[in-house]
Amino acid sequence: MNNFTFYNPVKILFGKAQIAALTSEIPADAKVLVTYGGGSIKKNGVYDQVMAALSGRTVTEFGGIEPNPHYETLMKAVNQAKQEQVNFVLAVGGGSVIDGTKFIVAAMEYEGADAWDILAKKAPVKKAVPFGTVLTLPATGSEMNSGSVITKAETKEKFSFGSPLTFPKFSILDPETTYTLPVRQISNGIVDAYTHVLEQYLTYPVNAPLQDRMAESILLTLKEEGPKAVENPQDYDTMANFMWCATMALNGVIRVGVPTDWATHYIGHELTALHGIDHARTLAIVLPSLLRYKQETKKEKLLQYGQRVWGVDAGTEDERIEATIQATVAFFESLDIKTTLADYEVGQETVKEIVRRFEERGVKNLGEHADIQIKDVEEILTMSL
Amino acid sequence: MNNFTFYNPVKILFGKAQIAALTSEIPADAKVLVTYGGGSIKKNGVYDQVMAALSGRTVTEFGGIEPNPHYETLMKAVNQAKQEQVNFVLAVGGGSVIDGTKFIVAAMEYEGADAWDILAKKAPVKKAVPFGTVLTLPATGSEMNSGSVITKAETKEKFSFGSPLTFPKFSILDPETTYTLPVRQISNGIVDAYTHVLEQYLTYPVNAPLQDRMAESILLTLKEEGPKAVENPQDYDTMANFMWCATMALNGVIRVGVPTDWATHYIGHELTALHGIDHARTLAIVLPSLLRYKQETKKEKLLQYGQRVWGVDAGTEDERIEATIQATVAFFESLDIKTTLADYEVGQETVKEIVRRFEERGVKNLGEHADIQIKDVEEILTMSL
Repeated sequence: MNNFTFYNPVKILFGKAQIAALTSEIPADAKVLVTYGGGSIKKNGVYDQVMAALSGRTVTEFGGIEPNPHYETLMKAVNQAKQEQVNFVLAVGGGSVIDGTKFIVAAMEYEGADAWDILAKKAPVKKAVPFGTVLTLPATGSEMNSGSVITKAETKEKFSFGSPLTFPKFSILDPETTYTLPVRQISNGIVDAYTHVLEQYLTYPVNAPLQDRMAESILLTLKEEGPKAVENPQDYDTMANFMWCATMALNGVIRVGVPTDWATHYIGHELTALHGIDHARTLAIVLPSLLRYKQETKKEKLLQYGQRVWGVDAGTEDERIEATIQATVAFFESLDIKTTLADYEVGQETVKEIVRRFEERGVKNLGEHADIQIKDVEEILTMSL
Repeated sequence: MNNFTFYNPVKILFGKAQIAALTSEIPADAKVLVTYGGGSIKKNGVYDQVMAALSGRTVTEFGGIEPNPHYETLMKAVNQAKQEQVNFVLAVGGGSVIDGTKFIVAAMEYEGADAWDILAKKAPVKKAVPFGTVLTLPATGSEMNSGSVITKAETKEKFSFGSPLTFPKFSILDPETTYTLPVRQISNGIVDAYTHVLEQYLTYPVNAPLQDRMAESILLTLKEEGPKAVENPQDYDTMANFMWCATMALNGVIRVGVPTDWATHYIGHELTALHGIDHARTLAIVLPSLLRYKQETKKEKLLQYGQRVWGVDAGTEDERIEATIQATVAFFESLDIKTTLADYEVGQETVKEIVRRFEERGVKNLGEHADIQIKDVEEILTMSL
């Protein structure tokens, strides 16, 4: 097992009717900015529950945070929050609203000339306004970590940042808030969470059997609950199990002491930035090719994953690995998530453009062995055409 | 799944040479009290590593905290710490030292007449001195939770308390510190951690498959690594895996949204209080009888546990349950942990004494169904004779 540091102070309030707990979680004298996305929370009752729980406080709101939240949009929220002297922000939505809010609270206190530097130049976050979340879309795990991914629309750049100061103070997870989600978002959420686990698990063994089994626990549960969630998104227990899997997939618990990959995410971000393909779908495109391309260095974990999660135990090692990757692809496709670039009408020219951008940015040494270079990215993407 | 709140802000620093991190984790101007037990840390080099890392700070020490730490001993530490105006406490040791330190930091700030009320009367902890830990004995999980169990030697009473203020600020887990542990303590630690998991798992199903699988992950890993740890306590990876299992067994992660039992612990505490039997051994005595006695209400989980952890899948339900309990007993016995009261020369008169004490204390409604009464405790203990 590798040395590690683990720290996650996010308080989770999980279950039915937990939104009412906002009353005790946010100081009574707080000036609150409520952030949200496209407005679905106004149709499904979540907005009303939130406002009822905040009653008595000074509340202002900022809606319209888009998927893959834009720096340009978020800076408007920063200006509004500063003007209104907000001292607590409440994100109500999915990963995009929460990621966007992490940037808002950091940018509100940023003293440099341009808050974009937090992303592009990794300028350190020295202070941030406290915030909490009400999660309505299980997927990214952002509700229980300190990471954030933001897109600059102008340049189509998608960058990440994180800081111990951008952990939510609390996150409220009420599975009933997911009942009105479109099937497309549920499928995306399942594939996103599933891939988060694989990025932290499908690397190489370091004698960490508990972490392996915990990762497999999430994979097995998503495999079981995912199709049920798509089928019947108003079944409480199904949605509760899916929701908790998505949180556990990226709250740091399964990654302690083990290597992680993240090349699939790094490459996938470009497909979202250039073509607006849903984040989870970019992962489903890149991952199978990456696993095939790196199957030699990932061999032991691929065999273990195939055996323990998909029951693949017949054939040569190569055959078992291929069967395992095919089972993974079939799982994604069963959720109606397409897995090739052609499915999204993206061709060779995008591969070239990503290579060009990576060259410009000097990208190198991706993956758990830091051995994925730009030429490898080109091959992986070509395999996904 | 049941509603739940999860909160655990303990920072974990895990791995080789992590004790040096004390230098950055404890403020440079802190007045530090270092607490420890019987002094083994002075023989195995841990004390020297700690003192080197604390160099430059005002450091005082309090040794001699016994197993099942005594209120009487701890109050001496409280007086010393107050006199010396200590503002940070560092526990170096196992669960007893850490539990004791939680009481010390709460008692230092307690404003009532008698700090024993924190335990006996559940007087609320309103303030506590910050503390950290250096764990040297994997077992109780105390390094990553806020709970504490303290014994009053005078009256042979063993009570627990906990507060959000008694989470360690950090815990350092260096598996190398366990290399010189006596085999007896390693065996105890394995059984303690294993039973912690069973107390949170062997109840009744509430459709929480991820929590079930995570609990089973710890059980399977302890089953695998435990015998290796006893055999070769200087194998780094083995001790690292055991150490992380023990922490994960009681840091709250596996208990979210599920019922818990804890009757085995409640009854076992009496055996330690009356006869000084090692805590883990009391669990190994009580648990098998409790499982047999409550096998009807625990049936579904017992069958699942038997199948997934011990591969028991042949025979009638009753046969499978008995085989599962026998496999658990055999596991404990394989670690040289005896499982009957007779093994410890304890007889019927102790059963009567525990019944008398429970009657005096008005104990009732133990277990996940709150259906274990004093007469049931008597039957369970009688089955363990």
